[in-house]
Amino acid sequence: MESVKLLGSETVRLDRSLGRVLAEDIHSNRDQPPYDVSAMDGFAIRSADVAKVPAVLEVVEDIKAGGMPSWTVQAGQCARIMTGAPVPQGADAVIRVEDTHAVSDLRVRIDCSVKAGNDIRPRGESMRDGEVVLRRGTEITPGVIGMLAMVKRANVLVYRQPRVAILSTGDELEGLNEPFDAGKIPDSNSHALMAQVQALGIEPVLLGIARDDPDELRRYLQQGLQFDVLLVSGGTSVGVHDYVRPTLEALGVQMMFWRVAMKPGHPVAFGIAADACVFGLPGNPVSSMVCFEQFVLPALRGMMGNPRPYRRTIEATLGREVGHRPGRTEFIRVTLDRQECGYVAVSTGAQGSGMPSSMASADGLLVVPSGSDGVAANSKVTVQLLDGTAYQEEAGGEW
Amino acid sequence: MESVKLLGSETVRLDRSLGRVLAEDIHSNRDQPPYDVSAMDGFAIRSADVAKVPAVLEVVEDIKAGGMPSWTVQAGQCARIMTGAPVPQGADAVIRVEDTHAVSDLRVRIDCSVKAGNDIRPRGESMRDGEVVLRRGTEITPGVIGMLAMVKRANVLVYRQPRVAILSTGDELEGLNEPFDAGKIPDSNSHALMAQVQALGIEPVLLGIARDDPDELRRYLQQGLQFDVLLVSGGTSVGVHDYVRPTLEALGVQMMFWRVAMKPGHPVAFGIAADACVFGLPGNPVSSMVCFEQFVLPALRGMMGNPRPYRRTIEATLGREVGHRPGRTEFIRVTLDRQECGYVAVSTGAQGSGMPSSMASADGLLVVPSGSDGVAANSKVTVQLLDGTAYQEEAGGEW
Repeated sequence: MESVKLLGSETVRLDRSLGRVLAEDIHSNRDQPPYDVSAMDGFAIRSADVAKVPAVLEVVEDIKAGGMPSWTVQAGQCARIMTGAPVPQGADAVIRVEDTHAVSDLRVRIDCSVKAGNDIRPRGESMRDGEVVLRRGTEITPGVIGMLAMVKRANVLVYRQPRVAILSTGDELEGLNEPFDAGKIPDSNSHALMAQVQALGIEPVLLGIARDDPDELRRYLQQGLQFDVLLVSGGTSVGVHDYVRPTLEALGVQMMFWRVAMKPGHPVAFGIAADACVFGLPGNPVSSMVCFEQFVLPALRGMMGNPRPYRRTIEATLGREVGHRPGRTEFIRVTLDRQECGYVAVSTGAQGSGMPSSMASADGLLVVPSGSDGVAANSKVTVQLLDGTAYQEEAGGEW
Repeated sequence: MESVKLLGSETVRLDRSLGRVLAEDIHSNRDQPPYDVSAMDGFAIRSADVAKVPAVLEVVEDIKAGGMPSWTVQAGQCARIMTGAPVPQGADAVIRVEDTHAVSDLRVRIDCSVKAGNDIRPRGESMRDGEVVLRRGTEITPGVIGMLAMVKRANVLVYRQPRVAILSTGDELEGLNEPFDAGKIPDSNSHALMAQVQALGIEPVLLGIARDDPDELRRYLQQGLQFDVLLVSGGTSVGVHDYVRPTLEALGVQMMFWRVAMKPGHPVAFGIAADACVFGLPGNPVSSMVCFEQFVLPALRGMMGNPRPYRRTIEATLGREVGHRPGRTEFIRVTLDRQECGYVAVSTGAQGSGMPSSMASADGLLVVPSGSDGVAANSKVTVQLLDGTAYQEEAGGEW
């Protein structure tokens, strides 16, 4: 995270800004509401007139939202008023229509007393002209978009997204659109990584598959280093045919690390060049995805200025014991089941790094700390929530 | 949810399928791995040869991933092998390179004994030709995309997304691109609702602002009913100027409900027509967004076949007491702070439905059940997580 640079900024249209991060403070351009307005559909009254109820008042006017009052409400009078409409002179409170009874077209009976100010939203309550309503560094959620529209920002300055390239390597790989070859392994990494990047709102470029040829690999890597971030899967372990690391170094990449005490994902590597950074991800599909989660995802979100770079974690109860040999942090694919006591995490089954289905069916990654001797059933564990867990099957309560 | 129909299906490209829901079972098209392969970079050996260690073996071949072995490993021999490469005849285990020492180019010393099968992934371990690997109704996450690429699905059948139209109503509203008018209220609802829909992966159509004119409103509503879902904000309460409900009914919409015991959001309405459904949302920005969360969001996700239509809820500890009068379910905008004891929920401050900032800064909606007399500090509460909470500031542990 220390090696990762915050990218520059760019202006985008409001309707393309969701999920981006503000690169400017946003000021209000008006008092909102612009005058004292009614918070309810009802009647604007003088509170003194309803000190004793029931009270029958004369309706002198209808005030719509968007209209302006033309009368001052005198003693014994009121005005029919809509939510958001300006409170007329003379009135100091609003009574909602449900608490009134029409006596005739021009007369209404009020059944409850209210204090001055009741159901009135004072001028400037929501925002005051000129004040900062949103700070630089704020993630643009739908609620933030509502605020931006409120201050009429059709365009906003946001941090730029990283341009991301994805490369797979290896003679054994068969491309998605290449003919079936029983002896080969389909390249799933390019596509899974693409989706992981897309889930962050970034559209990456797939460079394709570099075969085990030093010149071809060099050309591909050179192309990839034109992007802000290059993800290379495969070719980063210690076998004699692994050209990726030396080729990257020959291209001026300074490797920051190339092996991490984690499982899966041991051979993950990271390097930086003048204007790019490179992640070397394991060729194994599950390892590649887990390494993306731990390293690439926070880096990409950090580059976009997001104050929340990491996956949300929750505490869960372990459903079934998990074995572990100390030495490496382990990321176990689990499903989460909501029970009375909270979330229960259960391993998705075979955790071999060659089981892509373990990732497809996972709700989260249970983190087994490096020093652990294994985790007993019913222990409290930390689980990183994955895509697809922002929503749940049931509403979560009877309200 | 009972009124909402599952939409039909359509074929989309794999790289456009993230977040959609499978409308077909997916079968494997091959054994994966296609043969017994090495799970490590190392040496393919005969386990009997390393029953006593150290043992020095002759290296007879290099087997790359994507290559095929050409020799049978005999007693006292081994083959250098890469992760994913086929295990040669004669060998029954793999020893990872870290547990070996090169004696010369053609000889390697093995320092540990292993059992037959060690670090070998047997043919078909990940998937068997013909088996169902993903079920209809599965949400397409990055892990699922990896599986789809593994079985070479460049296109997949998914449930169609609803076509959504958004309409604001009211003379008091000022459009985003209209000139500033101090007496008007900017239309933020259209844009906030658009973003809420976009956050579900759906690109809605903004119809604009219908003024308080029955003919104009009728034309707009008629246009909106050409979509699968029409969201109308404003004009649904009981004021005399509210034309929306009667106009919808005149257009053949059967209103299913038009008032809910909730706060904010009391005047929310829902109706169905032959090929469309309509949500009448309050004109107030916060109320409109809260009603979207409670009603529109699960409906839209349900129409797309998503098995998880509802926002994820978590249990949190209430940081500051919350008053409540029984009668309506209340949705209080809160921030969430992670502490030792778990998440602590604190109200974002003024909860007036006219405070759009309360939604912009909220991490979640605390649900106060209808019958509650108020919630004391330190009580356990249920919080619906909002956009922006899928990630957090810190990694969540030292591993």
